[in-house]
Formats: sequence, structure tokens, C-alpha cells
Amino acid sequence: LAARYGRAVKWHPILLGIVFKTTGGAPVVAAPLKGTYGLRDIERTARFHDISYKHPSRFPLPTQFAARAMLWLQETQGEDKAHEFAQAVYRAYFVDDIDISAPANVTQIANAMGLDTIAMAEATGSEPLKERLKGNIETAMARGVFGSPFIVVDDEPFWGFDRFDQIEAYLKNGKI
Amino acid sequence: LAARYGRAVKWHPILLGIVFKTTGGAPVVAAPLKGTYGLRDIERTARFHDISYKHPSRFPLPTQFAARAMLWLQETQGEDKAHEFAQAVYRAYFVDDIDISAPANVTQIANAMGLDTIAMAEATGSEPLKERLKGNIETAMARGVFGSPFIVVDDEPFWGFDRFDQIEAYLKNGKI
Repeated sequence: LAARYGRAVKWHPILLGIVFKTTGGAPVVAAPLKGTYGLRDIERTARFHDISYKHPSRFPLPTQFAARAMLWLQETQGEDKAHEFAQAVYRAYFVDDIDISAPANVTQIANAMGLDTIAMAEATGSEPLKERLKGNIETAMARGVFGSPFIVVDDEPFWGFDRFDQIEAYLKNGKI
Repeated sequence: LAARYGRAVKWHPILLGIVFKTTGGAPVVAAPLKGTYGLRDIERTARFHDISYKHPSRFPLPTQFAARAMLWLQETQGEDKAHEFAQAVYRAYFVDDIDISAPANVTQIANAMGLDTIAMAEATGSEPLKERLKGNIETAMARGVFGSPFIVVDDEPFWGFDRFDQIEAYLKNGKI
């Protein structure tokens, strides 16, 4: 969508658990009534848009390692490689039901992409990278981010895949 | 949308405040970060779909009287008249910023429609009607309703105006 309108996308790894602690938010599947519907809605929306989806047997789960690995890739390998990695991790979790909270499973994905997994292991355990991820989360919240996917185009915020029609209108007209 | 697919719509007045007490839900504009976005999203979505909207100066507010009046109209005047009334009340609140928690304001709307406002006043104050509204809310929650607009087609639940594209797909194909 961005490419069609000559735009680049910068991805920002965050940890929703930390965001929810600040905003009082909760995973969509956790609330009574709303949770049951939320799961049905996710699966139905995926079918409606012809997107592969299998609800993970463990959901939600901690994603610190994957998020740090993503940040490290952005810093050392550039956006394209990082996006490819993020999409592979999403696919592993949301299609193949792989437990991406386990560093070994994320490392295996990186390995299959030919990435330097020893350097990745070192970086993801380092204090400076952990601090930069925390800083990322704070910056995101300062921009108004409270969920995911959250897309900011110029200064216009959009939450959720079901706002992509409005994002397209904004990209086309420069306003909405 | 329903008419285009040969369907009738039965409206069900409920009180979201009571639903939220059970589900732990909250008005979209009440949460930190999410609330600011929520209001912006409502106004932007209205513009996007060319729907008149002016955020009420008092929001949310109690709607017991309007909900009871709606139920009474459904029982005594039929669905069409009741829908016309509901739409007039929505327009008063969400376009003209009229405080619909005040019975006098709702009565004025009914009066302009030529309805018997003396009978309405009697009915809305009666215990049996109050009980039937409570029963309606319990039935709605038993069907999984936790927000509004909430549309159930056959047994398929849809929450939110942004699912009308999926409702249309269901009506067209009998499944989704």
C-alpha cells in the first residue's frame, strides 16, 4: 500500500505488555464476551481478506527476544532485511504455531535467513539494546500508540488493519 | 443493506452502562491514549463515510428514558415507527448536541413525530416496561453482545460499523 503511493515504511518493534501496563489495555481475547468475539473476529477477518491464520495455542506470549532481534537487525542490516525477518517471525507464530517466546525458535528463523545468529545472541543480551527497545516503546506511547498494528502517516494515527481503507484515502488525498 | 438482501432488522434497545458493568468494558473515549484516538477515529470515520457527526458536549450520558420509549414504541407502534424515532434521537444527540438524558428533550422529539407523549410518559415510568428493558439487556448479553452497534445475522455476531463489509459478504454468501 505504501509503495503504491511512493512511501517508505519504518517498522518499530514494541512490547504490548509494557504499553498495556501504562494504558490499562488488555489483550483482545482476555475480556469476558469481548474475548470470545475477538478471537472469532480475528479468524473471520483473516478468512475475509484471504490471509493465512491459525490462532496460536499459546497467546499472548512474551516477545522480548524477537523484538530485540528485530531492533538489532534494523540497526545492522537495514529495514528490508528486518522486515523480512519480522514477517517470518509473524508467520511462524500466527500460521505455524511456533512458540516465538523461545529464543531458540527465533534463532532458527534467523539462521534459515542466513543471518549471523552468534552476533544476534550477543546483541539481544546486551544492556544498551535492551535500553533502546525501552526507549522505542516510550517514544511510541508519546506518539499515542496503544495497540498494534498502529500506523502513523505523517502525523495521522491509524489503529488496526480495519483502517487500511482510511490510510489509503489519506495517502491518496494527503488528508482525511 | 438488509433490505438489499431481503432481510428485516429488529432493533434492540439496551443500556451499555449495564453491559459494561458485567463485561468490565468502558466507553471508547474514557481510556488513556486510546480515548484520545477513539474520539478522533469516530469523527474521522464519520467524515470518511460522509455521515453527519458532531461529538456531543456531554458523552456518554444515561439513556434509560430514550431506551424505554423505544421499547414502548416497538410494542405499540411497530418497528418502522420505532426505527424512525431511534434515528431522530440519534440525530438529536450526535448531530445537534441535544442532551437526550433529559426526558423533556426526548418527549419533544416524539411530539414532533406526532406520537402520544402522554401515553409514552406513563409507559416509560411503569415497572413492567423497566423490567422488560432489563430482560432485553440480559438477553443481549446472553447472545454475546458487549458493545454497540452490535448486529447478529442468523447466529453470526458482528461488532462495529467497520464490520459492515463482512456483514454484506455474509448476506451475499450465507456464510463467512
